[in-house]
Amino acid sequence: MGIVTLTTDFGSGSPYVAQMKGVLLSASRDLVLVDIAHNLPPYAIADAELLLRSTAFAFPLGSVHIVVVDPGVGSERRGIAVEANGCFFVGPDNGVLGAVASCGSCVSLDKTFLHRTPSASTFHGRDIFAPVAAELALGLTLLDVGSLIADPVKSTLPVFAETDTAVRGLTLGADRYGNLLTNIPARFVAAQVSVGGISVSLVRTYAEAAVGALVALVGSDGYLEIACREASAAERLGAVRGTEVVCHCA
Amino acid sequence: MGIVTLTTDFGSGSPYVAQMKGVLLSASRDLVLVDIAHNLPPYAIADAELLLRSTAFAFPLGSVHIVVVDPGVGSERRGIAVEANGCFFVGPDNGVLGAVASCGSCVSLDKTFLHRTPSASTFHGRDIFAPVAAELALGLTLLDVGSLIADPVKSTLPVFAETDTAVRGLTLGADRYGNLLTNIPARFVAAQVSVGGISVSLVRTYAEAAVGALVALVGSDGYLEIACREASAAERLGAVRGTEVVCHCA
Amino acid sequence: MGIVTLTTDFGSGSPYVAQMKGVLLSASRDLVLVDIAHNLPPYAIADAELLLRSTAFAFPLGSVHIVVVDPGVGSERRGIAVEANGCFFVGPDNGVLGAVASCGSCVSLDKTFLHRTPSASTFHGRDIFAPVAAELALGLTLLDVGSLIADPVKSTLPVFAETDTAVRGLTLGADRYGNLLTNIPARFVAAQVSVGGISVSLVRTYAEAAVGALVALVGSDGYLEIACREASAAERLGAVRGTEVVCHCA
Repeated sequence: MGIVTLTTDFGSGSPYVAQMKGVLLSASRDLVLVDIAHNLPPYAIADAELLLRSTAFAFPLGSVHIVVVDPGVGSERRGIAVEANGCFFVGPDNGVLGAVASCGSCVSLDKTFLHRTPSASTFHGRDIFAPVAAELALGLTLLDVGSLIADPVKSTLPVFAETDTAVRGLTLGADRYGNLLTNIPARFVAAQVSVGGISVSLVRTYAEAAVGALVALVGSDGYLEIACREASAAERLGAVRGTEVVCHCA
Repeated sequence: MGIVTLTTDFGSGSPYVAQMKGVLLSASRDLVLVDIAHNLPPYAIADAELLLRSTAFAFPLGSVHIVVVDPGVGSERRGIAVEANGCFFVGPDNGVLGAVASCGSCVSLDKTFLHRTPSASTFHGRDIFAPVAAELALGLTLLDVGSLIADPVKSTLPVFAETDTAVRGLTLGADRYGNLLTNIPARFVAAQVSVGGISVSLVRTYAEAAVGALVALVGSDGYLEIACREASAAERLGAVRGTEVVCHCA
Repeated sequence: MGIVTLTTDFGSGSPYVAQMKGVLLSASRDLVLVDIAHNLPPYAIADAELLLRSTAFAFPLGSVHIVVVDPGVGSERRGIAVEANGCFFVGPDNGVLGAVASCGSCVSLDKTFLHRTPSASTFHGRDIFAPVAAELALGLTLLDVGSLIADPVKSTLPVFAETDTAVRGLTLGADRYGNLLTNIPARFVAAQVSVGGISVSLVRTYAEAAVGALVALVGSDGYLEIACREASAAERLGAVRGTEVVCHCA
């Protein structure tokens, strides 16, 4: 019994989400469908990548993650599937799967007999990604659904820079509480952290922070996070992404 | 194992949605529940019809679609169930199921022994539609849940007009990207299309359109759609519904 | 096959919700997951309590309800599980489960071998509440997951006052239509009701009310409700909570 998650920018309550679910359940009513998010800003590839980074590997091995943030639908951009760390990912080749593709195998979805017929050129989510995801969830292998490619479009997320004295990263976005996610993995986190030039304390939990104080901590997804207890770090800094975050080596 | 979808104007996160799901799962934990949308504007019967048009037939045969947009709950308006094209529909008799009823069979939900006891007169979604939908999903027939009627309230969506030289329709609403849905089925779509008096090109995919240009295309639900690549056609035209769309015959 | 519902203030489309679902489905793919709401205002304990009051007992016996509105996560506040009226509840000990705890049994979640390892101190929803809820849904008893406590934090909802001549309560919040929920149970509802000093009629259904008139009725969750047909009672009264509601005895 396979698990298929859905992440799109279609909007909550969109008919496009429902159509994809109809196609998936038509393949098998036993599929377990999980909505990750449908309210991503339209065309926000980096936001979708960030969400995938935070969520995909919480699901059981073999889960299939469909991501449809697809401004180029109907153009010549490829559809791809990725296998990484025991999970599958299906979506457009526009960078949204770049991070997972860089640590796994990637195929171009050229086995058109698996696609819905006729396929609407405006809606690969329903006509290509959903049927392919269903097949992967039901037992097909990566090579059953496409042909290996070596050049998937790279992640659009900025990468951190490592020097002898510091690791320099950026804030990537905010969650609902105004906590800022960064691109600095937990293993680089040092006691001395600065955000936008301001030195902040490293704490273990939100509760350790003074109310209103800007702090750094390792977030639940394994990356450095900037928070402000019972307030919004995003508001305090006046920005949700692009603020420099530096971990100074001891 | 039956599929039941839910479409309401209760609002995302509404207790009323949860209560309906509780009733459905109390009938059988094996039912597969799918949320179509709960954030329809309150009392927006036409929007619910449009959503149903786009989504219902993507689901497997035998699926049951509950629609609760029900300003008249507790009044004398009937509750109905419809069987059309192998799917079931359950909801109030206020036009929201008018389009499907016109191409199928319709019963009035007068088998009160199937309803929840006591029934709250304010909440037929939970006390009548959910238990009836569960029974249909679990194998009852249309005639098991009600008595045939010939006069369900008609669809509230405007119909297109066909002349010798043109088919004239209207925009019915916009999706999240500002693409405008119309009431002109694909079979009438001609190369010469005008929207609000403006002549627009007919394209096959969004990607064929010039960025910012207003175009017509056949949408993924089989109707003519007005779009604007990487922009909002709704904003360009200054209206989401009621704009005249004309397909001129060759 | 167990049912687990989720109520949080994480926001719709939050990665935190997806992570909890990943943990639950990792325990068993047969769990039936139901979203109650994720768009509660941040830290809104009373709103979560109210939602729980309206929804929990619509689900089958044995269902497990996770509630994560948890401003104190990572502090010394306890995690608890409650068994009441045949259902289970799992969440922080901050009052959000106070009402159900007052009519059932309550344990402190001190069986840490059931928790996710390593546990993030910032995210008990994923690392403690989700795995414990899964175990309860799969058959563990309340005493298997924690040790009995007698002093859970009390409900934060105001209680009504009963005198010889009247029952005095308060509005607690509004639904999407502007209907106001109160803390007066149906059994105290009398023909003479006043709201904020204004005398209002008691009706059986919305449809009985004149359009625009403020009325009282017993809501679908068994409590007195203040409504305004095809308008918002909340707007009419200029407040969603804290308005006095009085049922005068006959």
